[in-house]
Amino acid sequence: MNSVIDVINKRVSLRKYAQRDISKEHLNLIIDSAIKAPTAGNQCLYSIIMIKDSETKEILSKSCDNQPFIAKAPLILIFAADQQKWFDYFQHRGVKEYAKKENISFEAPQESDFIIACEDALIAAQNAVIAAESLGIGSCYIGDIIENYEFHKELLNLEDWVFPVCMLCFGYYEEDFKRVYRKRFDKKFIVFEEKYKKLTTDELEEMFEEKEKRYVENNKYNAENFAQMLYAQKTGAEFSREMARSMRVALKKWDGRKL
Amino acid sequence: MNSVIDVINKRVSLRKYAQRDISKEHLNLIIDSAIKAPTAGNQCLYSIIMIKDSETKEILSKSCDNQPFIAKAPLILIFAADQQKWFDYFQHRGVKEYAKKENISFEAPQESDFIIACEDALIAAQNAVIAAESLGIGSCYIGDIIENYEFHKELLNLEDWVFPVCMLCFGYYEEDFKRVYRKRFDKKFIVFEEKYKKLTTDELEEMFEEKEKRYVENNKYNAENFAQMLYAQKTGAEFSREMARSMRVALKKWDGRKL
Repeated sequence: MNSVIDVINKRVSLRKYAQRDISKEHLNLIIDSAIKAPTAGNQCLYSIIMIKDSETKEILSKSCDNQPFIAKAPLILIFAADQQKWFDYFQHRGVKEYAKKENISFEAPQESDFIIACEDALIAAQNAVIAAESLGIGSCYIGDIIENYEFHKELLNLEDWVFPVCMLCFGYYEEDFKRVYRKRFDKKFIVFEEKYKKLTTDELEEMFEEKEKRYVENNKYNAENFAQMLYAQKTGAEFSREMARSMRVALKKWDGRKL
Repeated sequence: MNSVIDVINKRVSLRKYAQRDISKEHLNLIIDSAIKAPTAGNQCLYSIIMIKDSETKEILSKSCDNQPFIAKAPLILIFAADQQKWFDYFQHRGVKEYAKKENISFEAPQESDFIIACEDALIAAQNAVIAAESLGIGSCYIGDIIENYEFHKELLNLEDWVFPVCMLCFGYYEEDFKRVYRKRFDKKFIVFEEKYKKLTTDELEEMFEEKEKRYVENNKYNAENFAQMLYAQKTGAEFSREMARSMRVALKKWDGRKL
């Protein structure tokens, strides 16, 4: 163990923040750590949108599946997959004409460009999270920024090839904050040697045994077991359907059409 | 500055490794750090495939855009977005029948499930990278694992809803290794306040000024500037086209069809 792994182990998702601003020094260290993250071909295929305005936070707290704590986060960073800058640059420097002359195809960003840019954005985001944690600043990922795509696009002035893949709330831990750790699945269900292994039903039952203790018999979903309850609460719930719709709409922009 | 941010700052992508195995203790710390990473709703929507077999490494070094150094990495971890386990579990616990009874829809994983699972996988991957770095173990992301989808699916025994979003090579730094840091774009082109800002052509020229120094006049691509050269070398190159094809094929599995 060392101090880095100690920070990784100590982190929890923080949803209640000391009500004071992130210091300028700490903010810079968080941003610089994000930018220091590995990025495909040193292309930095992402952008960070920094939200400090309380009105925007209020709006995001509603548009991201109604989570009031978001409005109280001293700092919000939105990490966006971004191929816009590179493609604008390509167009500006005559790549279209060059491609035509060389008889190669010049296409708009497509799904693979989307995913590579998402990788850059997420790797940078996690660097920010760890740097923050080391400074006593907690964080919480908000995947719900993927919902309401058109609304967020307008709110944040996003271009077609800029996709907000995750949002992070940051704030100092409160002094008396008690960290509660959530148990992960047993390692043997996450790590496989040499090849992936489809789990048998016996293995699935063992994997989910701990989670199934969270099942409540008289639940409002008429669910008869934990799997049904979780599906009703999460995977099949309204916010997930909205996320699915949003993602489909957003991905349509990354169509690889001839430019 | 602290030791965590120091580790973040010191890291470079390492492509040449001391030829000795990762110790068992260090391997466990790397894996445990990955699993400790934040994950959407504590669902752990990813799997880690650990490659130590030298034949498989050899194959991957070829199938991932012919990069011989991959075969010499003492350890390879493939991080895969994984919704297979949860959906197998849902099916096993009668969610289909439940959904029918409750008149809600039970659908196969779709694009949003794909991206949320990719987020989990990448966030875990970056935790592994930082933990490793703190132990004197360097790493290199290989995005090319996205290429040759069908081949990798068979090689790694992947299910339809398991997608290898990134691969990481690990190995100890050699004692005399000199770290060379690649300059990132200026912060002002990555971080935006409150809203995204489409860059003007003047700003694009400033952003890419440093990169444009890498342009070589007599290049084999007949490129007349850096943008054209980079497009020919990377964005428009054969391996990128293969990645685009692969990604399209893989994404078709995440179709949200009624189960």
